[in-house]
Amino acid sequence: MSNNLLTDRFAQGEIARGAWLAVPSSISAEIVARTGVDYCCVDMQHGAVGYSDAIPMMQAVRAEGVTPLVRVSANDMAEIGRALDAGAQGVVVPLVSTPEQAAEAAAACRYPPRGVRSFGPIRASVAAGSSEIDALEQVLCAVMVETDEGLANVEAIAATPGVGAIYVGPADLSLALGLPPKYEHDDPTHESSIQRIRKACESAGIVAGIHCADGDMARRRLAQGFRMVTVANDAKSIGAAVAAELAAAVASSD
Amino acid sequence: MSNNLLTDRFAQGEIARGAWLAVPSSISAEIVARTGVDYCCVDMQHGAVGYSDAIPMMQAVRAEGVTPLVRVSANDMAEIGRALDAGAQGVVVPLVSTPEQAAEAAAACRYPPRGVRSFGPIRASVAAGSSEIDALEQVLCAVMVETDEGLANVEAIAATPGVGAIYVGPADLSLALGLPPKYEHDDPTHESSIQRIRKACESAGIVAGIHCADGDMARRRLAQGFRMVTVANDAKSIGAAVAAELAAAVASSD
Amino acid sequence: MSNNLLTDRFAQGEIARGAWLAVPSSISAEIVARTGVDYCCVDMQHGAVGYSDAIPMMQAVRAEGVTPLVRVSANDMAEIGRALDAGAQGVVVPLVSTPEQAAEAAAACRYPPRGVRSFGPIRASVAAGSSEIDALEQVLCAVMVETDEGLANVEAIAATPGVGAIYVGPADLSLALGLPPKYEHDDPTHESSIQRIRKACESAGIVAGIHCADGDMARRRLAQGFRMVTVANDAKSIGAAVAAELAAAVASSD
Amino acid sequence: MSNNLLTDRFAQGEIARGAWLAVPSSISAEIVARTGVDYCCVDMQHGAVGYSDAIPMMQAVRAEGVTPLVRVSANDMAEIGRALDAGAQGVVVPLVSTPEQAAEAAAACRYPPRGVRSFGPIRASVAAGSSEIDALEQVLCAVMVETDEGLANVEAIAATPGVGAIYVGPADLSLALGLPPKYEHDDPTHESSIQRIRKACESAGIVAGIHCADGDMARRRLAQGFRMVTVANDAKSIGAAVAAELAAAVASSD
Amino acid sequence: MSNNLLTDRFAQGEIARGAWLAVPSSISAEIVARTGVDYCCVDMQHGAVGYSDAIPMMQAVRAEGVTPLVRVSANDMAEIGRALDAGAQGVVVPLVSTPEQAAEAAAACRYPPRGVRSFGPIRASVAAGSSEIDALEQVLCAVMVETDEGLANVEAIAATPGVGAIYVGPADLSLALGLPPKYEHDDPTHESSIQRIRKACESAGIVAGIHCADGDMARRRLAQGFRMVTVANDAKSIGAAVAAELAAAVASSD
Amino acid sequence: MSNNLLTDRFAQGEIARGAWLAVPSSISAEIVARTGVDYCCVDMQHGAVGYSDAIPMMQAVRAEGVTPLVRVSANDMAEIGRALDAGAQGVVVPLVSTPEQAAEAAAACRYPPRGVRSFGPIRASVAAGSSEIDALEQVLCAVMVETDEGLANVEAIAATPGVGAIYVGPADLSLALGLPPKYEHDDPTHESSIQRIRKACESAGIVAGIHCADGDMARRRLAQGFRMVTVANDAKSIGAAVAAELAAAVASSD
Ligand SMILES: [Mg+2]
Ligand SMILES: [Mg+2]
Ligand SMILES: [Mg+2]
Ligand SMILES: [Mg+2]
Ligand SMILES: [Mg+2]
Ligand SMILES: [Mg+2]
Repeated sequence: MSNNLLTDRFAQGEIARGAWLAVPSSISAEIVARTGVDYCCVDMQHGAVGYSDAIPMMQAVRAEGVTPLVRVSANDMAEIGRALDAGAQGVVVPLVSTPEQAAEAAAACRYPPRGVRSFGPIRASVAAGSSEIDALEQVLCAVMVETDEGLANVEAIAATPGVGAIYVGPADLSLALGLPPKYEHDDPTHESSIQRIRKACESAGIVAGIHCADGDMARRRLAQGFRMVTVANDAKSIGAAVAAELAAAVASSD
Repeated sequence: MSNNLLTDRFAQGEIARGAWLAVPSSISAEIVARTGVDYCCVDMQHGAVGYSDAIPMMQAVRAEGVTPLVRVSANDMAEIGRALDAGAQGVVVPLVSTPEQAAEAAAACRYPPRGVRSFGPIRASVAAGSSEIDALEQVLCAVMVETDEGLANVEAIAATPGVGAIYVGPADLSLALGLPPKYEHDDPTHESSIQRIRKACESAGIVAGIHCADGDMARRRLAQGFRMVTVANDAKSIGAAVAAELAAAVASSD
Repeated sequence: MSNNLLTDRFAQGEIARGAWLAVPSSISAEIVARTGVDYCCVDMQHGAVGYSDAIPMMQAVRAEGVTPLVRVSANDMAEIGRALDAGAQGVVVPLVSTPEQAAEAAAACRYPPRGVRSFGPIRASVAAGSSEIDALEQVLCAVMVETDEGLANVEAIAATPGVGAIYVGPADLSLALGLPPKYEHDDPTHESSIQRIRKACESAGIVAGIHCADGDMARRRLAQGFRMVTVANDAKSIGAAVAAELAAAVASSD
Repeated sequence: MSNNLLTDRFAQGEIARGAWLAVPSSISAEIVARTGVDYCCVDMQHGAVGYSDAIPMMQAVRAEGVTPLVRVSANDMAEIGRALDAGAQGVVVPLVSTPEQAAEAAAACRYPPRGVRSFGPIRASVAAGSSEIDALEQVLCAVMVETDEGLANVEAIAATPGVGAIYVGPADLSLALGLPPKYEHDDPTHESSIQRIRKACESAGIVAGIHCADGDMARRRLAQGFRMVTVANDAKSIGAAVAAELAAAVASSD
Repeated sequence: MSNNLLTDRFAQGEIARGAWLAVPSSISAEIVARTGVDYCCVDMQHGAVGYSDAIPMMQAVRAEGVTPLVRVSANDMAEIGRALDAGAQGVVVPLVSTPEQAAEAAAACRYPPRGVRSFGPIRASVAAGSSEIDALEQVLCAVMVETDEGLANVEAIAATPGVGAIYVGPADLSLALGLPPKYEHDDPTHESSIQRIRKACESAGIVAGIHCADGDMARRRLAQGFRMVTVANDAKSIGAAVAAELAAAVASSD
Repeated sequence: MSNNLLTDRFAQGEIARGAWLAVPSSISAEIVARTGVDYCCVDMQHGAVGYSDAIPMMQAVRAEGVTPLVRVSANDMAEIGRALDAGAQGVVVPLVSTPEQAAEAAAACRYPPRGVRSFGPIRASVAAGSSEIDALEQVLCAVMVETDEGLANVEAIAATPGVGAIYVGPADLSLALGLPPKYEHDDPTHESSIQRIRKACESAGIVAGIHCADGDMARRRLAQGFRMVTVANDAKSIGAAVAAELAAAVASSD
């Protein structure tokens, strides 16, 4: 057992359901964290979240006993270190296409001699409950396979030491396959690619994760063997929920 | 026709459906405004919104052609002026219990000789599209009747010059009636009080508004003759929507 | 047992040691909360903290299992409500001079029929772990006696229903007594006034609290019977600690 | 000589030219302060500046050796204290209409026994260079006379102990006189009222100040005997300057 | 016709006059946007603007019907993607020295197979009015030629597919040519280099743009055939305008 | 003499004692700067400070006549330029392992032809008191030697033109040497490595600097010949100081 509930879950063979945070507010982060998700991932690649916003969001998430993650904007050692120092208990690294890139992501998450992370755990020690290297290294390195090159290399990526999960980005994967940027397609290539990624993870003994459009899709992905599924996104949720109430208000009144 | 779409709607006998903003972010405000609501009210009484947050939120709301309002924390001339200067095209003033208080709220919205507002329309002139007094005074003064004293005085409050709407706060009204703080009750006193307020507005020729738990309730209130109904709240919406997706993900998977 | 650890402590006859937060950052708030204090009070009277800063600070404090309080800038119903809605589990109200003022402060902390608080517990329900009135009303109303008039009325203030503590402001009390604004004085009037306040609290069965210059003074106040003592202030602490290290670096090196 | 360059100037019979800050940024504040003005007034009545924004602005102003002031939103003791504690070396208090109100404003700026200010000079001691009462009380209390009642009482207001200046708000004064909200009018009533205020200040031995539309008006007001003139406003300046460059770019090119 | 007014203008052979935003405030951004400029470029290379500041600025700019751009700090795919996702309808990429670098900048602006941009248009879809790839790719990729290597390669850079404009940085170009960092020089090398860049754009059928010191210079550049000219900068404008008013106030008064 | 007090000190053979800023607040920055340190370094590698936070912090530091530095997150030209443009009078560049990397860091601090910095000194000209290239280039380029490769190359790094200091990171150096991340070790390798770095600096005629755990260690490092020593860190100081007061309050009272 560590202070990282998410990696503990995965170590015990459990699944995790999470949410995505793109709204730069510790209030919305807290509300989302209180729904009972297992992780909340602050999206610093596509979300509207700057570094100054991300820290209070992670503080709010942690307060609920939920594991804070950050999707970084790039496979960049300094940015990964900044996210972890700020208290993320894992990073989701986009657009990883080769085992070398996967190894770089993994190295950015651990200290020498296992990696290249620089020491200065201002909030990492809060998250880990310790300033010991072992505790601080209890973080999830999830790499995204979502390019054609990444797909071609997925087995080697999955086998890269230090990589704890592959997280599928279905929209970018669609574009990589010449399809519109959707989560699911009738075209069998997209689905078979997703399953190839899942199997690569299973073979390598790491977690297969995937971004889902909604809870229903997440349920179906879990049934397939994915173990880390994002069920909702704050920005989309708020828009959909308010629109639904507005529609209900309009429905029979006009 | 003025630059205030909301007061124009009301002047033409139309209704308005709106949303409540309690999350301090211009991103969530923009998302909510894009759903097609007629107004977005930044809640500075019970919302998690400070003055420094409210202005970008109102900028984002206005960009969508939606009318920005502010619920102030108190019937305070300086705070009402601050909200209007910041670009609110109307204020919702809580806990108004007497016609004298209603007159103070109304006076805070207009310049001498009609009121006591101080001149300095830094963003009010943006909202109004003009720095002329007539344009700047095109704002909605909505007062909340939600105390027992307010209920007793509702006809006089509704008849107070300069008051454009009474906005019912059903939760505070419940407490005033010795009931738990809910939007609706089986107890007929609560509902008859709400209808008394609506009728007072109709008699006085002003708008009857009411805070609703959801779109369905809003639809029912519109059917009763309420003309300004809030169909959703950003904070509740985000929690409910994420929780629903999480439930869907859990449902058949466990 | 409630969700308010501080009022639970006091109900069980225990003491509490806390810290004062004047630096507008959720990082420093978290660091202070992790020291093991029982409460952290965000100072919105004399601290450099605006409303937009205070919420992440209280989120960080709560995450550590420490009770967040707010010192409001005035005995103002709307401001007290804002602080409680934002998640403060108690307020410290400055410059309370009469039992009527004390009753107003107390009323601002409870809902009708016990008080005048308006319902809208956006983060109060997070702090209380419930949206039930009983849980939401589990907050500390601490009033400051620090004027000559307040001192003269201290017994009546202490006996005011709903007041949970009197918190002595020794610097303002000094000024009220014609002394320089210090925490302690050789002049016996200051000290006897402080003891009079303490005794008034004991007679009324409420908590006697006091602002202290440092831990040593806090220890002595506890020994006298004070049960709520503030041992440190973030702003002073940081300056003193850095200055001490600088002095150590200079000492024998020049 | 004190740490307050502005009150020192006035004590030595000198004049002061200042600027108004309505844009919530320490960058624009710094730029304005570097122009060589004598004071910069953060406008918390009509400016787009919240408390969380105001402190870095005042830090930036002070860094340039310019005196930071705050125009508060109301004649409110707590808000005046907050502004001074945050490092303002003076306040401009709007809408003061009676000598009693002027005395309240003055009392809010000084500690007992001279006033009612509460002690807690977190940044006031930085501005004053001391935590001594005498130094902390070296602040300017400027009251605005800009209502008809204020005009009628101006001689008594000017004679109120503790008031250091009357600062004329020409736009509100226009409205009070039944005129459109402009800085100058052909109608002689407005101008004679302004001169009446100036003379009241001179008789009382305090500073006459006035808000001006531009530097040219400021120059003319100085020539009349006004000693505190605001020559520019950040928001208006930026709009006018960019518009002028745009016009120059369009001029002969289309 | 698209939702991008700026690229539409350029497609129709029109010119555009814009402004530069270095002050981190949505208030100043709004003021500048309202002057009637065609674009406002948030300067994240040399401006005082962090990511958390930039989004409200772009929201305010868009609200005025003005095209928001971002100058990124580097030719970095992740940063370009972040700017576009945040709602920029174009990027200005500094220090592009080779056609390969230009191609990288262009690729960062488009999705596979045309580029390498990752999908996640949180505010890009707001700006584009659509989440369709075609609409999202309607963005301007402007590269800056301002190094000696860039100048040597300008014709090839201009011919790079996906590059929509070359934006000249005259100050950096000066340094590259061994001159002080000014917008114009008597030395003919600087001017001839600028004209070489313009001609390269014309030959390649793309837009020639240039940073100008003021509106007069912008007018002259337009007359030469430049089609995208920045006429003013918020920071410089505010300083110059306040200084001018101060000078006017001093002029004849001292 | 220049506007850079720190490089002036070093040019005159003097030492400098500084502090590290990891708390994102201009209030704590100001407090630390007022202790009398020679420099304050905003830590953007391991501190909780985003770009939007850093500027007001540097404004507050400069106001006290203390030299503001930034530790950047990486040896990245754009980030170094951003820090200097924002008013840092020097940068501390982590993880520099080769003379080529050192030369890149140095080049990022100077304009062509000496370097590759891009011109746009929005606050650099404030810090330098001039927009002249010579004044703007008066900045400290301090590189950190803290990897095994860096240690092996330290003499060549120290001899790299444009590098003004090597700043030792003892914790990362520990990890590089297979030791736990502490400031000091019994193991002689760590200490001898530190002395090797110091001697390399002395031979090259540049400043040897080192991060210290406290003032006592700083004093000892100064005695060894280090000339740039960091005596305290805001985050650690605040925690230690509050904990000490809490301990004092507990000590004899329980
Ligand atoms: Mg992706
Ligand atoms: Mg209510
Ligand atoms: Mg006090
Ligand atoms: Mg006025
Ligand atoms: Mg350039
Ligand atoms: Mg290091």
